[in-house]
Amino acid sequence: MAERVSDIGEWGLIRRIASLLDMDGRRSGGVTTGIGDDAASFLPRPGYELLVTCDSMVEGLHYLPAFTGSFDRGRRAMTLNISDIGAMGGEALYALVSLGLPADTLVADVEELYRGFLYELNPFGASIIGGNLTGSGNGMFIDITLIGEVEQGKAVRRSGARPGDAVLVTGFPGRAAAGLQLLLRGPHDAGLADDPLVRAYTTPSHRARVGRALAATGYVTAMTDTSDGFPGDLGHVCEASRVGAEVIREDVPVDEAVREAALLLGRDPYELVLGESDDYELVVTCDPRHVPFLQSVAAGCAAVPLTHVGRITAAQGTVMLLPGGRKVPLDAAGFDHFRR
Amino acid sequence: MAERVSDIGEWGLIRRIASLLDMDGRRSGGVTTGIGDDAASFLPRPGYELLVTCDSMVEGLHYLPAFTGSFDRGRRAMTLNISDIGAMGGEALYALVSLGLPADTLVADVEELYRGFLYELNPFGASIIGGNLTGSGNGMFIDITLIGEVEQGKAVRRSGARPGDAVLVTGFPGRAAAGLQLLLRGPHDAGLADDPLVRAYTTPSHRARVGRALAATGYVTAMTDTSDGFPGDLGHVCEASRVGAEVIREDVPVDEAVREAALLLGRDPYELVLGESDDYELVVTCDPRHVPFLQSVAAGCAAVPLTHVGRITAAQGTVMLLPGGRKVPLDAAGFDHFRR
Repeated sequence: MAERVSDIGEWGLIRRIASLLDMDGRRSGGVTTGIGDDAASFLPRPGYELLVTCDSMVEGLHYLPAFTGSFDRGRRAMTLNISDIGAMGGEALYALVSLGLPADTLVADVEELYRGFLYELNPFGASIIGGNLTGSGNGMFIDITLIGEVEQGKAVRRSGARPGDAVLVTGFPGRAAAGLQLLLRGPHDAGLADDPLVRAYTTPSHRARVGRALAATGYVTAMTDTSDGFPGDLGHVCEASRVGAEVIREDVPVDEAVREAALLLGRDPYELVLGESDDYELVVTCDPRHVPFLQSVAAGCAAVPLTHVGRITAAQGTVMLLPGGRKVPLDAAGFDHFRR
Repeated sequence: MAERVSDIGEWGLIRRIASLLDMDGRRSGGVTTGIGDDAASFLPRPGYELLVTCDSMVEGLHYLPAFTGSFDRGRRAMTLNISDIGAMGGEALYALVSLGLPADTLVADVEELYRGFLYELNPFGASIIGGNLTGSGNGMFIDITLIGEVEQGKAVRRSGARPGDAVLVTGFPGRAAAGLQLLLRGPHDAGLADDPLVRAYTTPSHRARVGRALAATGYVTAMTDTSDGFPGDLGHVCEASRVGAEVIREDVPVDEAVREAALLLGRDPYELVLGESDDYELVVTCDPRHVPFLQSVAAGCAAVPLTHVGRITAAQGTVMLLPGGRKVPLDAAGFDHFRR
């Protein structure tokens, strides 16, 4: 019979995970105490600030087990955190993984989850140095803390946008939203899981390398990732910077696949592009004179388009400029975990 | 009507928490980005290693809402983590708090939870610099990541115990186990919640200051906290150090209140002292010549008894020496979150 975590117990599972990390994980520099002690320890590099973020994924709320396997779920959970570190201009170093597991969870599923974490961490030479395992009565939760570093003084915050700055966005927001809608609509034939939009939802990409390269130029005034959807996260930048923003609808990049999906779903493509979407693209602001240079950095770093979509204003609030010059409020709510 | 998190939403709750932290929390040094950005950032002190630990508390599994209010629950969750940092010889600096909250959670309960966190962090000048809020379908979970520091080379691990070393323990293990049994037995009259043993379970103390003072002497060879019960955690030290241990039953400190509770509960007091117990005492090993000095350090630091209870052996496994010289296995299982 398939082995479950209740068969091998907490310490059995810790040993199993430690041996998987030994085999498949990287050994990142600076670690002085790894997994298995009261705390992990590491020696930070002189001249660097440390970045630290945490993000949770809860079964049934952030993912539907029927749609994502353990490996993809692990990739996705780690990607959210890598994206946050990259959105500050930093690079991932060390992860701590806290899992809440129902006792009947398959050991093989936990191992696949960790393989997913490593799939995302290994390219950075980053490692898992600690964590916590606990039972969970109802469904799994995955809570990851990721520690990164950035050269002292080079971190980019949400709070630095100034009136007159250009607003840019990487890639094509809305792809994940379109993928989720396709999943919810069904039918789930063999090809659906491999649809690029569905993949954008189940295993989104991060733009951490682009974020780091843009921050290193010193020209980015504010940056954040679009985990709450583009308008919501632009709203967070505006709130933190005490400014407003004006987005020109015709300049917002709409992916061809999103346009086709919208047609299929009978929806306006802008609903997908400007609604809640788990895309992990970056919203970037800078002096308009630096736009072409930053665009060339993004293109050179990862062939990612960095589209100029609007500008920061002194007026509070975010608005959308429609063709013909009419302004409408750009919904700044984003995704909210509690509102119904 | 009482305000619930669904009424004010995720960002409303974040604002509420940020303002509570502003008012009641400390501003610890080194923080360069606080709450509300993609990640927090701080500048580490030269000459120090960083320690990082995380621990979860899950409703119904680690606490029974009927027995502990939000403030005490917050204290307890933070104490577990402070204890881990102290058991490495370090001092707490920064916390990240990740909460999974059912949408009908009272805002006032979340605020009380944070007041509990601050109650434990403030004496260290430590602060909450980040975290995550998410919904949770079934019951609350609290996952805390705590970052601390220790002078470079001064961290004490579980892996340094050597044959011939003395085994010591702080305080009186088993008090939390006795408190939990009293709670489960009832009846819940007014006085029960204030019973010192019940308090030892609902709001345990940590020995972080003692751990730090002991580590600073340079004489501690291995240390861990007793979050899994004294025998279980001594077992973890032995496993990490590839040694065994012999504990003399007559030397194990038995609290007078635990003895009385055992009588009331119709149990052997050693079942409580040597079973699973959430005490957050410290297990310490050292060269036997340093025992009196370390005992004076513990007494001077926090008036905590540090009792010499046995010795490390070259043989694998932990055994208990009974009066008359008979040896029995000291159950090294401790508390396991998955075994049934």
